[in-house]
Amino acid sequence: MTTSHQIILLAHGSSDRRWCETFERLAAPTLHSVEHSAIAYMELAEPSLETIVSQGKETGTLNFTIVPLFLAAGRHLRKDVPAMIEELENQHGVSIKLADPIGQNPQLGDAIRDVVMQELAGTIA
Amino acid sequence: MTTSHQIILLAHGSSDRRWCETFERLAAPTLHSVEHSAIAYMELAEPSLETIVSQGKETGTLNFTIVPLFLAAGRHLRKDVPAMIEELENQHGVSIKLADPIGQNPQLGDAIRDVVMQELAGTIA
Repeated sequence: MTTSHQIILLAHGSSDRRWCETFERLAAPTLHSVEHSAIAYMELAEPSLETIVSQGKETGTLNFTIVPLFLAAGRHLRKDVPAMIEELENQHGVSIKLADPIGQNPQLGDAIRDVVMQELAGTIA
Repeated sequence: MTTSHQIILLAHGSSDRRWCETFERLAAPTLHSVEHSAIAYMELAEPSLETIVSQGKETGTLNFTIVPLFLAAGRHLRKDVPAMIEELENQHGVSIKLADPIGQNPQLGDAIRDVVMQELAGTIA
């Protein structure tokens, strides 16, 4: 893999700093393991998707894959993000692929089961 | 564990059936592994939290633990859900514990990394 491809973990964003910190912790294992990756927010927090794409372009990245840190696809992922992507592609001359939201992957269901099992062990103990 | 304790996986809910189906798939491994568990929605979809708690009470369940299928805590989990819980506890004479949202658990960050690794393998392949 060259640096011409970048993974962007996209979260919704919030004006509540604690909300963003949770997503930064969720993103940390990915950012640690995947060399050319970043977190970005749709709105209400920085770095924005626009910031990350324009910074990437400046350093020679032409292809991006957005992995949405959303459990399911609602209006944001069906309409708003595709519209943002089209605008960024035209503006920066880059190619941006939108992956499925993380909750579409069966691994998440298994992780949820494990979290519940831990919760249950703590409740019953 | 007796049936006097129930795990409730709480999702926000949506009028979009596809959104709810994603959450039902996410909940499936838990519902399969944890005998007395259910999914419920805050709003816009059934079964509601009220429905699940009142059904549980009818069959003798007095203690519930809500595990929020949310990646981070925003207004809903800090204000709306605690208010719903207080009302349900008073109305039904039950005890309802609100666990952290699933995204607070480090396992989720690891699962996200694995999902991104899969995505990357598919992109590069």
